[in-house]
Amino acid sequence: MIRRSSEKTVETKKLFNGDGQVTLQSILNGAPEMYGKGRVFSHSILKPGCEIGWHIHHGDGETYYILKGRGLYNDNGTQVEVGPGDVTFCDTEEGHALKNNGDEDLEVIALILYK
Amino acid sequence: MIRRSSEKTVETKKLFNGDGQVTLQSILNGAPEMYGKGRVFSHSILKPGCEIGWHIHHGDGETYYILKGRGLYNDNGTQVEVGPGDVTFCDTEEGHALKNNGDEDLEVIALILYK
Repeated sequence: MIRRSSEKTVETKKLFNGDGQVTLQSILNGAPEMYGKGRVFSHSILKPGCEIGWHIHHGDGETYYILKGRGLYNDNGTQVEVGPGDVTFCDTEEGHALKNNGDEDLEVIALILYK
Repeated sequence: MIRRSSEKTVETKKLFNGDGQVTLQSILNGAPEMYGKGRVFSHSILKPGCEIGWHIHHGDGETYYILKGRGLYNDNGTQVEVGPGDVTFCDTEEGHALKNNGDEDLEVIALILYK
């Protein structure tokens, strides 16, 4: 099965009351191809100054894989600088947030799997 | 939890008897953070002419998300050109392969979830 780039669902919206907006390009969000194992597999783009606001996970965990740019990641209460190739993980009952604190777009692959 | 880019497992090897070699950068391959729901979450790089050889999935399915470059994807027997933003899915008991038929690196995020 091929799903072309042009068919992807793309939304730009405020996420968890974070600063600015985030562009979410769905790869497999909630699709049957996730076999019910997760609910998000996406490619997100944060312009400088924009953020995915703080939120706590319940019943699932989320991985971010940083593709490009620089960010400030809130790792369950601890602020950490992140960049290309870094992997962050937020387990169930933990919280996280990610802000673009650089001067180029911050691009992230996100994966949410059920625990 | 943060896993730095420098800590990532990186392997370059022939995959499924395909042409050339593929560089596999693990994001969460088989890690506890996948909650036993899958076995691969990786960022792969194929130099021009290199390929992930034909293989059939049993008991799991694999998604490729094309980040960069051009490729020829064997979609369970049908050859299809793919490029940035395209998503391919190989269900259990289906086969697939991916060859870099362009002149720049082909970069792919791969996710294997158990069915």
